[in-house]
Amino acid sequence: MKRLYPESLLAIGPAIDRGFYYDFDVKTSFTKNDLNLIEKEMKRIIKRNFSIERFELKRSDAIKLMQKLNEIYKIEIINGLKDNEIISFYRQGEFVDLCLGPHLNNTGMIKSFKLLSTTGAYWCGDAKNKMLCRIYGISFPNDSLLEDYLINLEESKNRDHNKLGRELEIFTISSHVGKGLPIFLPYGAKMLRLLQNFVENEEEKRGYLLTITPFMAKSDLYKISGHWDHYKENMFVIGNDENGKEVLALRPMTCPFQFQIFLNKTRSYRDLPMRLSETSTMFRNEASGEMHGLIRIRQFTLSDGHIICAEEHLEDEFKSCLELAIFCLKKVGLYDDVSYRFSKCDLVNNKEKYIGTENQWKFVQEKMQNILDDLGLIYESVDGEAAFYGPKLDLQIKNVYGKEDTLITLQIDFQLAERFSMKYTDQNGLKKYPYIIHRTSIGCYERTLALMIEKFAGAFPVWIAPVQVLIIPVSIDKNLCYAKTVMEVLKENGIRRVEINDRNEKLGYRLRSAQLKKIPYMLIVGESEEREKSVSMRTQKNGDVGILKLYEFLKIIKKDIESFPSWNTI
Amino acid sequence: MKRLYPESLLAIGPAIDRGFYYDFDVKTSFTKNDLNLIEKEMKRIIKRNFSIERFELKRSDAIKLMQKLNEIYKIEIINGLKDNEIISFYRQGEFVDLCLGPHLNNTGMIKSFKLLSTTGAYWCGDAKNKMLCRIYGISFPNDSLLEDYLINLEESKNRDHNKLGRELEIFTISSHVGKGLPIFLPYGAKMLRLLQNFVENEEEKRGYLLTITPFMAKSDLYKISGHWDHYKENMFVIGNDENGKEVLALRPMTCPFQFQIFLNKTRSYRDLPMRLSETSTMFRNEASGEMHGLIRIRQFTLSDGHIICAEEHLEDEFKSCLELAIFCLKKVGLYDDVSYRFSKCDLVNNKEKYIGTENQWKFVQEKMQNILDDLGLIYESVDGEAAFYGPKLDLQIKNVYGKEDTLITLQIDFQLAERFSMKYTDQNGLKKYPYIIHRTSIGCYERTLALMIEKFAGAFPVWIAPVQVLIIPVSIDKNLCYAKTVMEVLKENGIRRVEINDRNEKLGYRLRSAQLKKIPYMLIVGESEEREKSVSMRTQKNGDVGILKLYEFLKIIKKDIESFPSWNTI
Repeated sequence: MKRLYPESLLAIGPAIDRGFYYDFDVKTSFTKNDLNLIEKEMKRIIKRNFSIERFELKRSDAIKLMQKLNEIYKIEIINGLKDNEIISFYRQGEFVDLCLGPHLNNTGMIKSFKLLSTTGAYWCGDAKNKMLCRIYGISFPNDSLLEDYLINLEESKNRDHNKLGRELEIFTISSHVGKGLPIFLPYGAKMLRLLQNFVENEEEKRGYLLTITPFMAKSDLYKISGHWDHYKENMFVIGNDENGKEVLALRPMTCPFQFQIFLNKTRSYRDLPMRLSETSTMFRNEASGEMHGLIRIRQFTLSDGHIICAEEHLEDEFKSCLELAIFCLKKVGLYDDVSYRFSKCDLVNNKEKYIGTENQWKFVQEKMQNILDDLGLIYESVDGEAAFYGPKLDLQIKNVYGKEDTLITLQIDFQLAERFSMKYTDQNGLKKYPYIIHRTSIGCYERTLALMIEKFAGAFPVWIAPVQVLIIPVSIDKNLCYAKTVMEVLKENGIRRVEINDRNEKLGYRLRSAQLKKIPYMLIVGESEEREKSVSMRTQKNGDVGILKLYEFLKIIKKDIESFPSWNTI
Repeated sequence: MKRLYPESLLAIGPAIDRGFYYDFDVKTSFTKNDLNLIEKEMKRIIKRNFSIERFELKRSDAIKLMQKLNEIYKIEIINGLKDNEIISFYRQGEFVDLCLGPHLNNTGMIKSFKLLSTTGAYWCGDAKNKMLCRIYGISFPNDSLLEDYLINLEESKNRDHNKLGRELEIFTISSHVGKGLPIFLPYGAKMLRLLQNFVENEEEKRGYLLTITPFMAKSDLYKISGHWDHYKENMFVIGNDENGKEVLALRPMTCPFQFQIFLNKTRSYRDLPMRLSETSTMFRNEASGEMHGLIRIRQFTLSDGHIICAEEHLEDEFKSCLELAIFCLKKVGLYDDVSYRFSKCDLVNNKEKYIGTENQWKFVQEKMQNILDDLGLIYESVDGEAAFYGPKLDLQIKNVYGKEDTLITLQIDFQLAERFSMKYTDQNGLKKYPYIIHRTSIGCYERTLALMIEKFAGAFPVWIAPVQVLIIPVSIDKNLCYAKTVMEVLKENGIRRVEINDRNEKLGYRLRSAQLKKIPYMLIVGESEEREKSVSMRTQKNGDVGILKLYEFLKIIKKDIESFPSWNTI
């Protein structure tokens, strides 16, 4: 970089989960051609087999060295280091860089690498700072491993929900509407509705009461919940109180809204456990650079809910919540991909972040740990990741590029009931604050859908495929009428997502296009099929299957719809 | 008023649909006791039988007279009158008031009256103006007519959805959340979901494609649609563009969002008619005084949709839309209460309000009129009530107090496609703008629910009753187990909204409470019922019916669920 673009300034360049990146302050952003030039220069440096030397400097000398090289970002980094931290540098040939290390012994040890892409990134990730140019790359001990990785990456790109979801007409983004506000096209809307109905029905069976609460409230509500103080910068606020006017804000969570339902009447132990659920839309003012496809958006819908219960219910209810989440994840085929994270508070280093006493935290965290251990869960414990009102269990999942996100969160809250003066009368006539479990069944619908697109590479299980059956008449002129009859029979039998391809195109072309649309069942109907009241069945998975009677096909597809997806098959 | 509160100022006092009101500027708002005092004074005035005299003044004299009496609101009214308007006054005894009239000849002609209520009201209905005190009253030619009216009014109050809806735990309002933002409790949420599922399924059967589009957009979108210029003051706007930042606004309508779906691909005549529907939540910044229960709120959900079609589809599609709306209204029992209003433009007096040419308006209004006449609809024609982009048919309905609101609107729009550059290729390869029908199936869900509560006085048809069956064990100790069995059998048979009253209260008390909750079917189960696998059935409508085998009850309730409500029975 310094050889090719001597004026470029170095920012940071860490190793990451998959490869590495480096951020540069450069005048113009990089092109594909730039990356090629940089790669060539890197190969030259590798060939020269420079030895790489580590040295340490004390703070004043370190700053002097960086000032000499005009590396203003490095100076900022050094100034941000604590007094007792070692300040190390690495030198190879004419190049020297501030780095924690470790590095290789010499440049010749690099055997195989590739610069993958370039993107913009704010200095320190803050949109108020300057936009830098980031280059992503990866390195392997040999070329064949690199090649495997690149093939894999290509495959990942083909599974990327942000690409595939648009190709399959699941969603689109409009520049007039804005970023992070996906528009669900009929296929995507159908899938979301199917997921929502599945979850709502399952919750109802399990004793949940569905609620519908408003998407905005006066600032008063958020002041009680603590969100006004702790979360306001992520909220969409309407109006300001400068002239004493009402200030409203879009909700970033459902809890205080659902609490109003508990508060609607005086409550006794007979009302507990009260299981409330909601297909709840909410809003978070994500920064422009943070938004990604359907995974990180500004408006999203969570299968949200709260279990308001007494201490003696806590264990059973928490287990039921987890059981329901696992049931839902199995149904959508994502269960095998999650890992568990037990997020606890950190009262030693970060006491002011949390409300409640040390004893309360100890009690409830032990309770939660016992439940997890009792279930035999394998989980990672993380201090300092709890919500400000209680510990949580996160079900984590990685997207197609390996980036980890939280899919499901279950929290035990022993604080908000008090803030909202939510009391019940126990068996002895005493007023008590209940515990609250904050929970979701299937997570955020948009995110879950995104992960399903990637998991199945768009070839969805039949129960949720937006088009389950495509009927393809061999000749539009001769067989369209029979195709319509087949569609009617399917619809009468409850198979409602059926389409006919009656476009004036060649049969082969129509078959390929159905294959590309990843439709599970394709039924080709010609003269002989019409005569025999049968269909030629082709499946997404197995290709041509052969000729079946129509009633035989009905049996197959009905069985398929009722089955859970066979995860791990793709 | 002037006798009792000499400092009170007179604002306006018109006759209205049901009685009259008068707005006063007074220091403190009125109490029930004030109304009694005022009524007494009115009776004295009636007894004196003052003659009532009309006289006219020219503007300057009129203002002088009002200045003498310090009636500043009257002066404002006079200043607002057009030059050629006659300025008339009425005098009775010591009292004189600016009024258009006509009045009675003398106060003795008043035979029977009552002051009904008092409320706050802004001068000229504008929240920026001073809050005045309004007194509502009513008068009849004799006491017995007044008495009938008051009984009726009491009945209306008992049907008032804003009262009954809270008593039946359908919704609540929280002062922390805010006005116009109802919280649906489990019973209300269930009813909304039932309505939504009913509409969505019906729409799907009729070839509609469901969409899910975001609830907010950048101001750019509203600038194209024209809402930014014509409707901004009713919208919730987030942020301001002072510092060049992104401005977002919550949507007050769905149209431009759904149009993005048409715009997602190039379209041809093969795609038309495209029927898009959405269970669409939107937001309107109603003034504080305008909000009412579930009828006028700040966040509401409309069964919204747009049919994008060619001219040749217009007639059939419009008829289908109306047919669907009528089907839905029949299902919810409101069909018999609607009247039709054909809202046309007024190019003579208000040309600037509308877009498009005179010929375009003429063509499309004639088209719409022909459709309405062809259907044999009886409708009222109103000039000047069209949308800015086209004429509309409104289905009007009155609430329990006789206030009229629009329940359903169907519009033909020949303008917005052009604004959004929505084109399709016709059979001859020509690019054309489609027509758009803006339509709803069942109107705004909250408003429809409110009108259903009032129509049925809370005693809902079984298909939508939040609790369909309440099982009441005669003895909790002895019969609870059988009650649970009955519940299980009902649920297995698809009757899912079943509850058991197992509270330790007397049987009579539990029966009365079920009656008050307006539950359609009450099943009393004791020892003999258990022995006979039967239930004692009591219905909301007919009281005790007698003992039935459980399977017989299942037949009855299933038939009831499948039937449309027998409207006009209450």
